Amino acid sequence: MKAVIFQGKGKVTTEERPRPGVRQPTEAIVRVVRACVCGSDLWYFRGESDHAVGAIGHEFIGIVEETGSAVRNVKSGDFVIAPFAFSDNTCPHCQAGYQTACQHGGFFGAGNDADGGQAEFVRVPQADGTLEVVPKRKYDDDMLASILSLSDVMGTGYHAAVSAEVKAGDTVAVVGDGAVGLCGIIAAHLLGAKQIIALSRNPARQALAREFGATTIVAERGKAAIDKVLALTGGIGVDAVLECVGTDEANQTAFAVARPGAIVGRVGVPHQVEISATGTFFRNVGMRGGPAPVKAYMSVLLPAVLEGRIQPGRVFDLTTDLDHIQEAYQAMDERRAVKVLLKVSEIED
Amino acid sequence: MKAVIFQGKGKVTTEERPRPGVRQPTEAIVRVVRACVCGSDLWYFRGESDHAVGAIGHEFIGIVEETGSAVRNVKSGDFVIAPFAFSDNTCPHCQAGYQTACQHGGFFGAGNDADGGQAEFVRVPQADGTLEVVPKRKYDDDMLASILSLSDVMGTGYHAAVSAEVKAGDTVAVVGDGAVGLCGIIAAHLLGAKQIIALSRNPARQALAREFGATTIVAERGKAAIDKVLALTGGIGVDAVLECVGTDEANQTAFAVARPGAIVGRVGVPHQVEISATGTFFRNVGMRGGPAPVKAYMSVLLPAVLEGRIQPGRVFDLTTDLDHIQEAYQAMDERRAVKVLLKVSEIED
Repeated sequence: MKAVIFQGKGKVTTEERPRPGVRQPTEAIVRVVRACVCGSDLWYFRGESDHAVGAIGHEFIGIVEETGSAVRNVKSGDFVIAPFAFSDNTCPHCQAGYQTACQHGGFFGAGNDADGGQAEFVRVPQADGTLEVVPKRKYDDDMLASILSLSDVMGTGYHAAVSAEVKAGDTVAVVGDGAVGLCGIIAAHLLGAKQIIALSRNPARQALAREFGATTIVAERGKAAIDKVLALTGGIGVDAVLECVGTDEANQTAFAVARPGAIVGRVGVPHQVEISATGTFFRNVGMRGGPAPVKAYMSVLLPAVLEGRIQPGRVFDLTTDLDHIQEAYQAMDERRAVKVLLKVSEIED
Repeated sequence: MKAVIFQGKGKVTTEERPRPGVRQPTEAIVRVVRACVCGSDLWYFRGESDHAVGAIGHEFIGIVEETGSAVRNVKSGDFVIAPFAFSDNTCPHCQAGYQTACQHGGFFGAGNDADGGQAEFVRVPQADGTLEVVPKRKYDDDMLASILSLSDVMGTGYHAAVSAEVKAGDTVAVVGDGAVGLCGIIAAHLLGAKQIIALSRNPARQALAREFGATTIVAERGKAAIDKVLALTGGIGVDAVLECVGTDEANQTAFAVARPGAIVGRVGVPHQVEISATGTFFRNVGMRGGPAPVKAYMSVLLPAVLEGRIQPGRVFDLTTDLDHIQEAYQAMDERRAVKVLLKVSEIED
């Protein structure tokens, strides 16, 4: 089978690898229908985070091909979403809704033993707790893209909004106009935010942000962006902030535009971020967030996608395949694409 | 009148000062009945935070002596609680429940223009928004002590618990066995926590912690304390953490014992605290808190005190007066006393 292999900074290739088979009774093998490249894959591609040479990718949907003897919740032929983290969904952390902290869990394509999602087949540990079954019917490409987004970006944007405790009527700032930031706008809108301020400099992303529910665009950055958001809120600051980047500048902006008592919902993996204990304390500004338990949000987001109430698949603005993986990464690295979708197979193949 | 004057590191004196009069139509003058020394006053006394030579103290209850022409909510003769922060209670921050961020507010005895609460009379800015009227009847010393605690420590402990989002059935860790930590135990108990783990090495404080609702005492500190709390929770961590100290060690302990998804409710003023962005992120551990909007909690806590459901006044274990202020500070500095109450006058004087 074909599998994308991370070769080191700036280089990914597609190689022939043995097709995986079930090794543990709790595993399943999924034939990948759609996969994609994540903004967090770029940290590795840019050499800013370490990743072993090997399998990569953690977002995929597909068809269950084989199940271990202990698997009960999914069967061969099921159409499934794989969250970027696998989890047993029964341990205390999973039961509390934090499947990304599962006692028997882990992450796909993170450089450890788990397979990568950018491949034709993937071995899924903890299949019962991990895979989300989607009703099997004929879906068009747009719907498949939206379903795929539930494996990470849409759930992650939603986690930012939930962590920031967005509620009906709120004024919300979304820092970051990548796929997660755009999904954060969808999430804030879904949760009833009245005013959604999107920080974005890119005209195409600004347009999509507006279609997703952003009411105001702030194109400035750094101090100018902070001043603008404060001016837009009468000097008060916003009720909730979604931090969807992970850089220090994005975090500092996020904390500075939060009104006293607000929470910064963080989903951008922090890279050299300093959080001032006193700076946040005296204004009662909080923070929550981390790796999104996207499995926990399936019950809310999957119906919203299937009923057409949200179209997060629109964040994909370039479609290619496993054979063009280097170009897929480069397009995102150079910000020519928001997010690249990989067509791997079709449901009925 | 007598007023306590902070003279610099390690020295407080009681001096004769002109009795304050109303200068602004929104002010009131309060004759102090009870005042006290706060753990945060010790940061100044120990030279660890700056404070101008001058008035100090920010917790007092008393009788309204005089009101400005614009004051409507209180009148001469009213028995009142003064929160440690004054506020108009009408600005957007106050309306959102964060009176300590009031656009026209400030803090008593913090080294700025506002009077200190350790005095016979205090000028109260923004009297309408600040003062909380208490039904005027005959209260014994114990009840007066509990009412006084609502000016700061009980409201602050409650803010830690609210910030940590303590809910019924939770397992809660309280870091800090000072007056605020002890009040945090009362608050966690009031909010329905099932298991309350108090970190305390002092036998007298341990005993009071148990009487306030602590179910388990952890006498260890640092890594040993973390290991103990994790062992007590089957390696999971606690559902909510109250950080009531403000040192780096206390904060690191607080974050380390939090289970994934939990929030550290911080009310200890941070002193050289480092918050690891990545350390908190990967476990989805959040933080909230800051200067407590004790005014916002009066509607919950004052009835609880007056009906005898909580006795936060028990945190006072030494009573003296303005003439013995140096000893009052020293007793707390040397941890001979948890919190020192100052008898200044009586309601019916």
